[in-house]
Amino acid sequence: MSRAIVLVSGGMDSCVTLSMAAQAGHELYPLHINYGQRTEIRELQAFNDLAAHFAVPPEHRLVVSIAHLAAIGGSSLTDPNIPVSAADLSSDEIPTSYVPFRNAHLLSIAVSWAEVIGASHIFIGAVYEDSSGYPDCRPSYYAAFNELIKQGTATEQSIRIETPIIYLKKEQIITEGNALNAPLHLTWSCYQNNDVACGICDSCALRLRGFERAGLADPISYSIRPHYE
Amino acid sequence: MSRAIVLVSGGMDSCVTLSMAAQAGHELYPLHINYGQRTEIRELQAFNDLAAHFAVPPEHRLVVSIAHLAAIGGSSLTDPNIPVSAADLSSDEIPTSYVPFRNAHLLSIAVSWAEVIGASHIFIGAVYEDSSGYPDCRPSYYAAFNELIKQGTATEQSIRIETPIIYLKKEQIITEGNALNAPLHLTWSCYQNNDVACGICDSCALRLRGFERAGLADPISYSIRPHYE
Repeated sequence: MSRAIVLVSGGMDSCVTLSMAAQAGHELYPLHINYGQRTEIRELQAFNDLAAHFAVPPEHRLVVSIAHLAAIGGSSLTDPNIPVSAADLSSDEIPTSYVPFRNAHLLSIAVSWAEVIGASHIFIGAVYEDSSGYPDCRPSYYAAFNELIKQGTATEQSIRIETPIIYLKKEQIITEGNALNAPLHLTWSCYQNNDVACGICDSCALRLRGFERAGLADPISYSIRPHYE
Repeated sequence: MSRAIVLVSGGMDSCVTLSMAAQAGHELYPLHINYGQRTEIRELQAFNDLAAHFAVPPEHRLVVSIAHLAAIGGSSLTDPNIPVSAADLSSDEIPTSYVPFRNAHLLSIAVSWAEVIGASHIFIGAVYEDSSGYPDCRPSYYAAFNELIKQGTATEQSIRIETPIIYLKKEQIITEGNALNAPLHLTWSCYQNNDVACGICDSCALRLRGFERAGLADPISYSIRPHYE
């Protein structure tokens, strides 16, 4: 059985990605990274709930804390002085929640771990078009990262990043998750709160719009639940 | 004046690279990363000595500690259970000091910082042929990383990794450093000790052989000082 590391933030995209990796028959090695984001307490709980749901033993889970992204700053997700902006789903601009070059840090940790445990796949729930417009969610970015792995690792075993939901729209991710019995009720998406989801940040807005378009009910609670077209 | 982040481990290669970046007229932002290596105490001292030599103010220096490479393991540099092997400069094998995918972690930190401070260059003293044979020191690896930066950053300002000594042999690096008045007496290379360099680890061996071939005297002290042909 091939080993697959799965980056699990605790949100919906990573939950569906984890379900897909399980469905494909890989032995699961979920990886969670605390980089100083506001809602880490809740995200870590979601990570452990999801890992438990898939019966992943504790020794196959890795939780890593990195302080430097918050120290370097530049994002509302890690800097308490930059407010989390309300969603503007029609804007083309990169929102303040963008953490500069974040995914390279997450993937580098995954690749180092993959070299040590002999994993052949790294799954990440990156989403391209139907997302917040972060540059490190583009398919061309992952092609470049796979080339970097080829050039920069020492193992005979090839290691490949898999992005199974990158071309899906949010409502398709939800539909797909529903079809796979993905435990969406255990996930956390809100950028703002640790208890009840705010309903108005970028991440809540994308999630709520996705459920509306999929014609399904979001199983988690919200402080307010606006309609997003 | 353009801003340049320079990765400074505290060793000779990073010292000469720093001298080259200064010579090119960049405003220097030295970056040091503690990833749990055995000789970190001494390396951090070398970093600060080098930064002070180039009159870099403390607010332009960044020191980042990452615990996860040591936690993931797989290298004699970070795992006390894996002994640092004596040098075998004729071997083609990757030595036990290889830290899986290490440079991607260091470069990712540099790129995130570059995005926030608007730096256009990132200097790293990677050395290709005349080195320990780490895969993440190949020129093709840096070409792949530059492509990753192009795909994965949000700034208008382009950010480029520069590897000015990658094709140099160790003795050429020393000769070049000597010509630039690089403060080689402030550097630390030994993988094993924090006080007096051991003279027998891979890094000491490469350094001593380099000075011999350059026909110059190494200004630092060694426990033993073998001759390496």
